[in-house]
Amino acid sequence: MRAYDIIKTKRDGGVLTDAEISYFINGYTKGDIPDYQAAAWLMAVYERGMTSAETAALTRAMANSGDSIDLSGIRGPKADKHSTGGVGDKTTLITAPIVAACGVKVAKMSGRGLGHTGGTTDKLLSIPGMRVDFDRDEFVSIVNRYGICVTGSTADLAPADKKLYALRDVTATVDSIPLIAASIMSKKIASGSKNLVLDVKVGSGAFMKNEKAAGRLANEMVNIGTSAGLKVTALLTNMNSPLGYAIGNSLEVIEAVNTLKGTGPEDLTELCLTLAAHMLHLAGKGDIGECEEAARNALYSGLAYERFCWMVNAQGGDVGVIMDTSLFKKAKYYRTLTAQVSGYVSGINAELCGRAAVLLGAGRSKKEDDIDMAAGVMIETKPGAFIKSGDVVATMYSEHEELFDGANSELASAFSISPDEVAPSRLIIREISNAD
Amino acid sequence: MRAYDIIKTKRDGGVLTDAEISYFINGYTKGDIPDYQAAAWLMAVYERGMTSAETAALTRAMANSGDSIDLSGIRGPKADKHSTGGVGDKTTLITAPIVAACGVKVAKMSGRGLGHTGGTTDKLLSIPGMRVDFDRDEFVSIVNRYGICVTGSTADLAPADKKLYALRDVTATVDSIPLIAASIMSKKIASGSKNLVLDVKVGSGAFMKNEKAAGRLANEMVNIGTSAGLKVTALLTNMNSPLGYAIGNSLEVIEAVNTLKGTGPEDLTELCLTLAAHMLHLAGKGDIGECEEAARNALYSGLAYERFCWMVNAQGGDVGVIMDTSLFKKAKYYRTLTAQVSGYVSGINAELCGRAAVLLGAGRSKKEDDIDMAAGVMIETKPGAFIKSGDVVATMYSEHEELFDGANSELASAFSISPDEVAPSRLIIREISNAD
Repeated sequence: MRAYDIIKTKRDGGVLTDAEISYFINGYTKGDIPDYQAAAWLMAVYERGMTSAETAALTRAMANSGDSIDLSGIRGPKADKHSTGGVGDKTTLITAPIVAACGVKVAKMSGRGLGHTGGTTDKLLSIPGMRVDFDRDEFVSIVNRYGICVTGSTADLAPADKKLYALRDVTATVDSIPLIAASIMSKKIASGSKNLVLDVKVGSGAFMKNEKAAGRLANEMVNIGTSAGLKVTALLTNMNSPLGYAIGNSLEVIEAVNTLKGTGPEDLTELCLTLAAHMLHLAGKGDIGECEEAARNALYSGLAYERFCWMVNAQGGDVGVIMDTSLFKKAKYYRTLTAQVSGYVSGINAELCGRAAVLLGAGRSKKEDDIDMAAGVMIETKPGAFIKSGDVVATMYSEHEELFDGANSELASAFSISPDEVAPSRLIIREISNAD
Repeated sequence: MRAYDIIKTKRDGGVLTDAEISYFINGYTKGDIPDYQAAAWLMAVYERGMTSAETAALTRAMANSGDSIDLSGIRGPKADKHSTGGVGDKTTLITAPIVAACGVKVAKMSGRGLGHTGGTTDKLLSIPGMRVDFDRDEFVSIVNRYGICVTGSTADLAPADKKLYALRDVTATVDSIPLIAASIMSKKIASGSKNLVLDVKVGSGAFMKNEKAAGRLANEMVNIGTSAGLKVTALLTNMNSPLGYAIGNSLEVIEAVNTLKGTGPEDLTELCLTLAAHMLHLAGKGDIGECEEAARNALYSGLAYERFCWMVNAQGGDVGVIMDTSLFKKAKYYRTLTAQVSGYVSGINAELCGRAAVLLGAGRSKKEDDIDMAAGVMIETKPGAFIKSGDVVATMYSEHEELFDGANSELASAFSISPDEVAPSRLIIREISNAD
């Protein structure tokens, strides 16, 4: 077998065998196949696509390229979730405690944020003392005791994906559906997921800008799940405007805590309850109606909030700031953005909001960048609302006053105002599942 | 300007500007743009193609990437030719002396052979003492004195092409028409050609397997010529069966000498006269009819043969072996291949014949390989001929008896025999030119 022939087959739109894909991925991971051959192959995959069988084989090869996490030490039913990344997406912080409060364990490995969407572990690290660097035994032990733990990964999960992603990033081959699907699912498979709910974001603030592309990605990931023996439900959800109001690490934790106390934004609450219900359903906790009921009870009884406090405590975090979120460290400066005209809010471009938050210090442009935990944006309105000229539509927070001008111009262009009433768009668009 | 954006534009089927192409080629040649980005870009070009304007810009950028040969020291009209590579293609050895004998100077830079087609300089080196390593001043001086010189290149011509070709070779991006056209033409432009006849081979023994692809390649090269101020005529010529009978270095020189003496194979003679006529026409020696007449006279008067002897002598070669070709060093062994059935020869696959010759030692599989100058194949029949079972259809020559078995199996499968009469195929298929 030769890398050259594998590139040539894909270049001509041919279908690769499992053995060819596995040879290529193993060879690349070990360094036997050089970057330039992998780059040519990635571009051929980008241009020619992959069948579902090829995508599943690619995922398996990547999942098998490094460590696998054995979660068999966790007792009882388990469920996992993954989001393809959105602006203001703090759903894990709310959904995981709801699910845990319903008796299904959540052993969640999360990534750091890059670009205009934030990472869950970054958000958690805004809680003083919080740790997200547990080894497998600590992780399993916290999950067994409290039903929940959210950690970064210390294992060498899917190193093929890490290496390929870095190459895709510099060769304009990132946004290929089979490559995205394989990247996400290989890490989930290697980290031991069995019942997986995928939140596939669609819209201006998401990687997938339209429903068709998001549907294809969701379908691919569900297919991969089927081929790897995972139960997977993918929800296509709206990311045209930010989820909730808060964008930025501690701002989002505070909003999550409010939501767990039952006073959160409507869209965020609804999405978290739906995700939780699907996780419970995959874990065998009844039909979807029963699971929705259970999730709602866990939230409004305060049991989910209690779980979150247990988790923070178990992970070394200061529960005091959760009890009284006014204790979170505040940004030194803030500046408001006001509407220039009166009318109905017809759109709040989530990507521009996310980029404004990054410019304020809330995210990373490069891997090495430090994060300002208190920086970010609070959106003060929602699509469909009527606002008057001069109303505050958003507030920016930062440690550095000089960052406001740049962030302001991104943020100002995020808001569209229309003289006509605007119909609200659906939050949960569609569901694709391999479970009944 | 960023390499990433240039890759992305081409990935999406966009058209690159001259500035973008020049930035990418210069960056890659200098090493600022890494192999993996160039590989992704080459695959995108392979999949998405290039417009004629992009191909011309690529050619210019490659031609300008290194030295240029200034041939202004050569007095009087000049013409050049280039073949895209065929099996048994010794046309330069015959065409160049014909043209020189008609008063048009031929300053020809030739490459070494790789794969199943032989290189002109390799063929010349089978003449004892022959040199093909002249610097520019020696080259110009031989051309001015004798009207002809064939040399390898000592200058750093189009280093971008060398670097890109090496990368294309390992990333399955060789057979892309814009990339082939730019590769050939960049070297011709850098080596100072002004009047250029291209012999674009079509068929089993050629790079271009069908007329449509060959036509597109020819058109691209003529367009590039127009954009770079070269007069270019491209002839599409048949390479389904080998040209002439001889394949292998000294075997081909002997056949060329016979042709220059007026006793060569009909197809080879006809092609050389046609190529020569077009070169003379581009150099301003009259209309194509007059130029054909002049070429024929130069050949059958013996003046072209005389020029060839001058050239051999001027380049240090032993004219004695040209005068009496039986003095060429002979291969130690030969073996014949006989027909298994009677019938009409319906095909002689040129690529298989070429590969048999390489297996016998006549060519290189890798750049470092040594060549056995006397090795090769003499085809003893032509498509259309009637042969009887047991007739000799080819003779193999080699220094190493153990090579015959491998070569024999390639060679035997090259011949197709049919019970029905076979119409001869046209040698010169079509002509495309930017000159009137």
